[in-house]
Amino acid sequence: MLKEWNKGDKPEAEELEKRLDEARLTLATKQIEIKEKKLPVLVVLEGFGAAGKGSVLGKIIRNLDPRFFKVAVMEEATAEEKRKPFLYRHFVKIPPAGQFVFFEGGWMDEVTGDFLSGKLTKSQYKDRINSIKGFERQLTDNGYLVMKFFFAIGKKEQKKRMDALLSDKNTKWRVSKKDIKQNEDYDKCKKVFDDYLDKTNQPNAPWYLISSDDKKWAELQITELLISGIDTALMNHSKAVPVLQNTFPVVPIPKLCDISLEDKTISDDQYRVELKLCQKKLRELHNKLYRKKIPVIIAYEGWDAAGKGGNIKRIASALDPRGYEVFPIASPEPHEKARHYLWRFWNRLPKDGHIAIFDRTWYGRVMVERLEDFCSENDWQRAYYEINEFEKELADWGAIVIKFWVQIDKDTQLERFTLRQNTPEKQWKITDEDWRNREKWDLYEDAINEMLQKTNTTYAPWYVLESNDKKYARIKALKTIIKEIEKRL
Amino acid sequence: MLKEWNKGDKPEAEELEKRLDEARLTLATKQIEIKEKKLPVLVVLEGFGAAGKGSVLGKIIRNLDPRFFKVAVMEEATAEEKRKPFLYRHFVKIPPAGQFVFFEGGWMDEVTGDFLSGKLTKSQYKDRINSIKGFERQLTDNGYLVMKFFFAIGKKEQKKRMDALLSDKNTKWRVSKKDIKQNEDYDKCKKVFDDYLDKTNQPNAPWYLISSDDKKWAELQITELLISGIDTALMNHSKAVPVLQNTFPVVPIPKLCDISLEDKTISDDQYRVELKLCQKKLRELHNKLYRKKIPVIIAYEGWDAAGKGGNIKRIASALDPRGYEVFPIASPEPHEKARHYLWRFWNRLPKDGHIAIFDRTWYGRVMVERLEDFCSENDWQRAYYEINEFEKELADWGAIVIKFWVQIDKDTQLERFTLRQNTPEKQWKITDEDWRNREKWDLYEDAINEMLQKTNTTYAPWYVLESNDKKYARIKALKTIIKEIEKRL
Repeated sequence: MLKEWNKGDKPEAEELEKRLDEARLTLATKQIEIKEKKLPVLVVLEGFGAAGKGSVLGKIIRNLDPRFFKVAVMEEATAEEKRKPFLYRHFVKIPPAGQFVFFEGGWMDEVTGDFLSGKLTKSQYKDRINSIKGFERQLTDNGYLVMKFFFAIGKKEQKKRMDALLSDKNTKWRVSKKDIKQNEDYDKCKKVFDDYLDKTNQPNAPWYLISSDDKKWAELQITELLISGIDTALMNHSKAVPVLQNTFPVVPIPKLCDISLEDKTISDDQYRVELKLCQKKLRELHNKLYRKKIPVIIAYEGWDAAGKGGNIKRIASALDPRGYEVFPIASPEPHEKARHYLWRFWNRLPKDGHIAIFDRTWYGRVMVERLEDFCSENDWQRAYYEINEFEKELADWGAIVIKFWVQIDKDTQLERFTLRQNTPEKQWKITDEDWRNREKWDLYEDAINEMLQKTNTTYAPWYVLESNDKKYARIKALKTIIKEIEKRL
Repeated sequence: MLKEWNKGDKPEAEELEKRLDEARLTLATKQIEIKEKKLPVLVVLEGFGAAGKGSVLGKIIRNLDPRFFKVAVMEEATAEEKRKPFLYRHFVKIPPAGQFVFFEGGWMDEVTGDFLSGKLTKSQYKDRINSIKGFERQLTDNGYLVMKFFFAIGKKEQKKRMDALLSDKNTKWRVSKKDIKQNEDYDKCKKVFDDYLDKTNQPNAPWYLISSDDKKWAELQITELLISGIDTALMNHSKAVPVLQNTFPVVPIPKLCDISLEDKTISDDQYRVELKLCQKKLRELHNKLYRKKIPVIIAYEGWDAAGKGGNIKRIASALDPRGYEVFPIASPEPHEKARHYLWRFWNRLPKDGHIAIFDRTWYGRVMVERLEDFCSENDWQRAYYEINEFEKELADWGAIVIKFWVQIDKDTQLERFTLRQNTPEKQWKITDEDWRNREKWDLYEDAINEMLQKTNTTYAPWYVLESNDKKYARIKALKTIIKEIEKRL
């Protein structure tokens, strides 16, 4: 077992009350401070059943303004949630800047429970631990304070408390079958918990063991730890963190300037024939994906006016409308900006068997956000790793991930901009921002090349669609998707 | 049966192709027009199983830009959705301004299906029809275009198509048990469908019957109808609609100026005692509500600095954190502003057995939005009816709806503003906007009085909390909630 976190010995009753009064008051003022300084705080309470997580949490939040925190009770995943990656239902509940979220039971409970019940093999369990470490690291690297508390309790005491709860009709619903099983298999559970705590005890998000014999003492420990955690986090706020080495399997990919566009054309006749054939093929494959419950994520990035919209249309129109969704990605709304930049994409993942097509993506972080200074240099430098990690989660979940860079040259862009400007039905497609972006073409080209090199992984590869001839690009996109799906089926 | 909608006879093959080409192209340009003019368009496709809704829809959207429409496939409600009001899962899927949503099967399918299977009694079925009529009217009154198509098909033809689908392993999943049952009970189903179509055929959202023998002809009819529907809607856009008579059971309530505040005080000692007693009582009741799956909605409105936050805190801290949520309501974000103003509240409804507390509410429509011209006069005039209707849905669902007006006088507000301004820890609570609102006190008072008179219904009553003495107001809130819950249990 991890060495118990030691905040000195439990004080005498009077002293405890005094410190508790003080700590409660301080935490309430800290709540205002995190609101003002926009610090997001994620608190996880894990532990044995009947160890008192719920009631201690009830006491802690009693002193907080309920408008600026949420409690997330992580019960069994719903049928819908089970159709998403394991981290999904946890990730979507992270707090916005300036607020607390308290998780009562969370990913530890789920993963150790699934391992103990045999739902996860040893190697799947190991993968989950890695996912969790990445999740928590991404949060703290992105300015979140993550505080994890584990409520320990002995076997006999647990039995005693559960019996007490079960004997009252108003409280017996609080004891689940899982809790009862846990007490029966106490030693086995304890061993798995120990192992989990050990493996996920990281400097950025350490575990605090709380002995829960005395609820007031537990409340005091947690409250004081939250206060000091917040103080430290506020000092570190917006400090740069180390950029990790890119340990993902990256494959070399040509630079944009080395991609020839002139020869990538298709005749109108051939286009018509191939389009029909490819769309028919894709339609059949979509049916198979649906039945085999394989999710597909197709990401489009490319120059303004490169032809993303028309390209996406040719993919979508081959698909059964009940099984796909297209997400146009604009600049984030306030509630999105207040969270980890990948949050809005976690929120838009397809169910298994479905296809999600993104018109612009999470790569905005290393393009527009980088070039327009919407994030710090440390932020975008770190993002290559974070994105590779995100896509790894998707691939490990079983998703086919396909990323398109829609490529045109600068002259072609000018031609298309001018056409848009001069054609009334097309004017909605062009804005002043497009012209401003065009001025930064060379800076963008550098950023794109860096992005392609650093994120062209084996499990989520980039494909360049040469789109000076839009029709050529459409057929290539269709064929690429077909090939990637066939590889899997 | 409704008289079949008649757009002339089915044309000859060649003529049909020609008109279809033209209509497809026109609809694509209409899509850009609705985007520019911010018209939201909700299209419902209902009908017999195997009548071809899905495949005709597939053809229609093939010509549209998939970034600006969504298809909502309304399958059986999930376990989570069943814990919300019947309209919930439909309402949350309405389109934002400028986009299409196509519902493939929707509320008609659900309600007629539940009636046919005996899940709904005759009187419940009647209530559902009324809810649906209100829902569709609220949409069209708020600037939505709602177009409803019913796909008719004969019994023999249905059987033939289902057999064909069932004989192919790639398509057999498309035929549900419900479809098979529908064919067996064809005549009974047809009678219920007829009745439903008849009752929900309203001038603002009429039904169009589509004969689906020929899919191209069906596509042409729908496409041409959508085009003319859009044209009409664009002409009517932002035109005022009639304000309906307030037919809800409204109870008289005193005007603000007739409410005495001076005598509404409580001693500190009494406060401490009563607070403890009331909170204990509420905690017990919360447990019972949870077990009986009764939802509770508590709405707070009141003057700035009236003490809403502290009041809510005293309620929340009596509740089990696993069973309630507090929603602070600020001005709407872009994706919220793009939809019906009640959409963001539909999205925040509690599950049954849970409590939702709103810090400011949907009444913003008839206060700040009215006074700041964020909506038209017709909009806020209509809102009293719409809000009564919304709350009726909640009450009929089984929710306890409690609305608080937190009342102070003008001098007390000034005192509290000044205190906030001069106390560093309280400064976050006061903004320039608060001072500006204060200047409009009298206009607000008129609006509030009108709101109280028009929305104090028997099923969702207002309670004024006299809050010159905040402690008095807190105890009154607790007692009111306890009384309302006890009435129900």
